[in-house]
Amino acid sequence: MPERRPFDVLNSSLNNTVIIGMKGGYEFRGVMVAYDVHMNIVLEKAEQLMNGEVKRGVGTVLLRGDSVTFISPS
Amino acid sequence: MPERRPFDVLNSSLNNTVIIGMKGGYEFRGVMVAYDVHMNIVLEKAEQLMNGEVKRGVGTVLLRGDSVTFISPS
Amino acid sequence: MPERRPFDVLNSSLNNTVIIGMKGGYEFRGVMVAYDVHMNIVLEKAEQLMNGEVKRGVGTVLLRGDSVTFISPS
Amino acid sequence: MPERRPFDVLNSSLNNTVIIGMKGGYEFRGVMVAYDVHMNIVLEKAEQLMNGEVKRGVGTVLLRGDSVTFISPS
Amino acid sequence: MPERRPFDVLNSSLNNTVIIGMKGGYEFRGVMVAYDVHMNIVLEKAEQLMNGEVKRGVGTVLLRGDSVTFISPS
Amino acid sequence: MPERRPFDVLNSSLNNTVIIGMKGGYEFRGVMVAYDVHMNIVLEKAEQLMNGEVKRGVGTVLLRGDSVTFISPS
Amino acid sequence: MPERRPFDVLNSSLNNTVIIGMKGGYEFRGVMVAYDVHMNIVLEKAEQLMNGEVKRGVGTVLLRGDSVTFISPS
Repeated sequence: MPERRPFDVLNSSLNNTVIIGMKGGYEFRGVMVAYDVHMNIVLEKAEQLMNGEVKRGVGTVLLRGDSVTFISPS
Repeated sequence: MPERRPFDVLNSSLNNTVIIGMKGGYEFRGVMVAYDVHMNIVLEKAEQLMNGEVKRGVGTVLLRGDSVTFISPS
Repeated sequence: MPERRPFDVLNSSLNNTVIIGMKGGYEFRGVMVAYDVHMNIVLEKAEQLMNGEVKRGVGTVLLRGDSVTFISPS
Repeated sequence: MPERRPFDVLNSSLNNTVIIGMKGGYEFRGVMVAYDVHMNIVLEKAEQLMNGEVKRGVGTVLLRGDSVTFISPS
Repeated sequence: MPERRPFDVLNSSLNNTVIIGMKGGYEFRGVMVAYDVHMNIVLEKAEQLMNGEVKRGVGTVLLRGDSVTFISPS
Repeated sequence: MPERRPFDVLNSSLNNTVIIGMKGGYEFRGVMVAYDVHMNIVLEKAEQLMNGEVKRGVGTVLLRGDSVTFISPS
Repeated sequence: MPERRPFDVLNSSLNNTVIIGMKGGYEFRGVMVAYDVHMNIVLEKAEQLMNGEVKRGVGTVLLRGDSVTFISPS
């Protein structure tokens, strides 16, 4: 196992803006304020994106880890 | 792990209106009156939404956590 | 955790008519006479619905919890 | 929990004709001669149905519980 | 629980020709020479079928139980 | 249980060319140099196939067992 | 079990460029800097690919193992 662990990315992204890919192909962008070991994630000031364009603002949103495909600090 | 936890969003949304994203792309909007650790959720005064438009009123509805993708206080 | 639990909806709906959403988008409507912790559910006098219209009567039907997405007392 | 349990339907349907809904939308109809706790089911004199019409006879068939969505005594 | 068990079908079909339904809708037909509790199955002299027609011969094939939907002695 | 076990196919195919079916319908063909109990598999000199035609060479590739549907020695 | 194990590919690819196949059919290419037993993977200098063409640069990205289908050192 490498010294760096995947969850380090989550920890270092706390309170920063991230893009979250979701099963089904859409994405959320917002400030990550909480996560847990299941990759359940809470974003604030969040927007839902479809094909790279903002579909709507959603404010605070809790994303269920089971539906998350990737997480990228922006 | 951060101090704030994803389930805090559920707890602080009790008795408030939330939007729930479901696998398959549709949504429910209603007053959240119960949830559990599986993210099974009960809404009252609920409406089913398709593409952002109200499809029908459903009154009380129990959403199975396995089908929930996101939860957003509205 | 809230005092009200999601399974309360199941218990209070026993012997009443409910609508059950299924993965794949269709629904069943009938009198709920049994359920268990996996959300396996038995309906009597049941009808299968597609796009809100009755597709056929099925009498008694056992729905596998894994395929259930929502349950709404009607 | 209610006194009646979902598996009672399976037990009372042994050696009777049932219709089984499968993920993917097709169905099997036949005489149920065996089942287990995973809802693995064996039908005899079975037919595979598509859109309510008989597609072909399959004789004996073992259905994997993971692919079963509903079971209805006919 | 009934006296006959679903896995009896597998045991009595050893070294006989079976048709295996797979998630995604295609099928394999061949002589079943091995299986395990996960319904992982080995066929010999196997053919892959699409819409009931032979697509190609594959000789020996190991089918992952997770992708198996039904098994029918032919 | 039969004397022959499904994993025997994997063991006897080590260092031989195999075709691997993947969820989503595409395939890989290459020399199997490693596998584990989850059916995670490593191929070398591998090619990705779509509809039976080579789409591209990929050299070494680790296939996640969860996405594997079948394995056939070629 | 063979002497070589699937995770050896991950270990030997650390700090090298890899292509990651994802459920849904798209891919990521980047330098793998971390992974864990669930095949959660972190890439740096990453690009998202669709049909073999670069769709966009994403910098650092954490891929959830559940959505990974294959990993290939490039």
